[in-house]
Amino acid sequence: MLIALDAMGGDCAPTINIDGAVDTVNEQNNIDVILVGNEPLIRQQLRKKRFDPSRITIHHASQVIEMLDAPSSAIRKKKDSSIRVGIDLVKAGQADAFVSAGHSGVIMATSLLLLGKSRGVDRPAIATLMPTLKDPFILLDVGANVDCKPENLLQFGLMGNIYCKLVLGRNQPKIALLSIGEEDTKGNELTKEAFKLLKNTSLNFIGNVEGKDLFTGKADVILCDGFIGNIALKVSEGLAEAMLKMLKQEITSGSAGRIGYLMLKPAFRNFKKRTDYDEYGGAPLLGINGASIISHGRSTSKAIKNALGVAADYARKRVYEAIATAIEGELVASSAAPASSMEH
Amino acid sequence: MLIALDAMGGDCAPTINIDGAVDTVNEQNNIDVILVGNEPLIRQQLRKKRFDPSRITIHHASQVIEMLDAPSSAIRKKKDSSIRVGIDLVKAGQADAFVSAGHSGVIMATSLLLLGKSRGVDRPAIATLMPTLKDPFILLDVGANVDCKPENLLQFGLMGNIYCKLVLGRNQPKIALLSIGEEDTKGNELTKEAFKLLKNTSLNFIGNVEGKDLFTGKADVILCDGFIGNIALKVSEGLAEAMLKMLKQEITSGSAGRIGYLMLKPAFRNFKKRTDYDEYGGAPLLGINGASIISHGRSTSKAIKNALGVAADYARKRVYEAIATAIEGELVASSAAPASSMEH
Repeated sequence: MLIALDAMGGDCAPTINIDGAVDTVNEQNNIDVILVGNEPLIRQQLRKKRFDPSRITIHHASQVIEMLDAPSSAIRKKKDSSIRVGIDLVKAGQADAFVSAGHSGVIMATSLLLLGKSRGVDRPAIATLMPTLKDPFILLDVGANVDCKPENLLQFGLMGNIYCKLVLGRNQPKIALLSIGEEDTKGNELTKEAFKLLKNTSLNFIGNVEGKDLFTGKADVILCDGFIGNIALKVSEGLAEAMLKMLKQEITSGSAGRIGYLMLKPAFRNFKKRTDYDEYGGAPLLGINGASIISHGRSTSKAIKNALGVAADYARKRVYEAIATAIEGELVASSAAPASSMEH
Repeated sequence: MLIALDAMGGDCAPTINIDGAVDTVNEQNNIDVILVGNEPLIRQQLRKKRFDPSRITIHHASQVIEMLDAPSSAIRKKKDSSIRVGIDLVKAGQADAFVSAGHSGVIMATSLLLLGKSRGVDRPAIATLMPTLKDPFILLDVGANVDCKPENLLQFGLMGNIYCKLVLGRNQPKIALLSIGEEDTKGNELTKEAFKLLKNTSLNFIGNVEGKDLFTGKADVILCDGFIGNIALKVSEGLAEAMLKMLKQEITSGSAGRIGYLMLKPAFRNFKKRTDYDEYGGAPLLGINGASIISHGRSTSKAIKNALGVAADYARKRVYEAIATAIEGELVASSAAPASSMEH
């Protein structure tokens, strides 16, 4: 698989992006990378690295989208941005997938503009993996759609189901709706309507789950609108960080604590790995007709490497085509009943 | 202060409720308690305890609201429930405040029915304290109103401001809106409209905060609709629990780890205290014309004790009256401009 990586997106670009690309080709045989961005800058940084030069190429792009750019004007005015040039490579068939840790709004809008939506999809969604006490689960949407209709949540369910089957390899994924109580009568107007739609599908819909159930491994795929999803994701990240800081403050405030801390270091390292969002790398844009993957703006080189892995897997398994097939199948199924009663 | 405590509400009622009441009168001079519920049962359990019998009385109520009861029918059919009887004591002036760890929907609805809303308030809200790296902040609404209008969020801001000033003793509390980006253009339809309303008030409105900012102490009061607030609260509780479990698994999986754990025990105990929701006790119903306080369904006796403390403070400072005054003042201020330009 050949992945176009936005070298200029993210808080520590291009350094960590380049590191992530180099680590990837050094550790994996089946992923090659095109670094998209300021060619002289990238070439200079690459010079210090050791890797097979046939497996990393550079594709120049003269402009960079800044995090404060408004998506609409950025897309109109920066036609040679690393995001646009990278997605264009996918469109032209010169790359199998695109990865960026840059402006997620611009990545989504440009992916929509150039690659379009999968057949039957109304609104693409950003799907992210989150850790639990058991296996990770998929949360979507985490930010693409802040105001949703019940039909959007239904489609998120169909898309998340396919993604979970193909990429996580789980049969019959348990699909749940994020709400404020388990009964179907609990929730807001949106979730109550979405509940009715979801229970009439072929999905293994297990009903509502609450915020406290997120990390217990109750569901494989959890659905919500992009506003809620973003809040849930950011609250989790913020709390995980705050808890580790508090714990460190407590631990290093006494000398017995300091010795204990040293003895516990391996345990802390394992723990951090289990709760580390870097481990889960990229969030694909489900419903886009192609492989376009968002990595966290604060990505480390490990997160970039993992996002490149997600992108390669997503493209290899052609998840976007499976999504189109699944949504068309569900539309046919739901229209079958009235059609057969019409007797032409 | 004399507080009516629902002896029958919560997962471990009446045992921990009675323990919380006994601990309160033994530790605090200025709070007496009326235990509301099944008199023979309460009397039997109280017999084993040591306390000044003049400071805990029992008020019989023959019925109990179960967590699965639908609020509307529970209120109609269970007229002698411990929740209703307790709130009736406040209404009749026989208690200064009411505390319950029972069905929050029924507590809210019954408080509305019997005590009514503070003047000028459209929708009461549940306000809870949450821990941060610095001081705790107030989050509201955490569940009373799942679908809100921008005007509701404005009133939540006015109410939270008063609560923060009077109960936490902070001057000029920093009020923020929970959203998915800091700029006023980021958010859903609700938050974008609420942003406009909030910036035209006398409040110290600092704009949007994101989910990741919740635990950094950026704001004193954070506003959201009840659906979002409930999700944010439950996600936090769930993650804090999951992280402690994961950490314990890691720590006890090696013998060096076990020794380290013993050395760190005091640090863990302090840490747990800082992140412990029990420490923060009760969530008052802001906008109800009287003191009605919800305690967590999984409350321990410490949480009940802290909720009784919150209730006494809330009643003593007559927060509900200050809220009515503040909302009336803001309504006058906002209508002053157009009125003065009309020149009658």
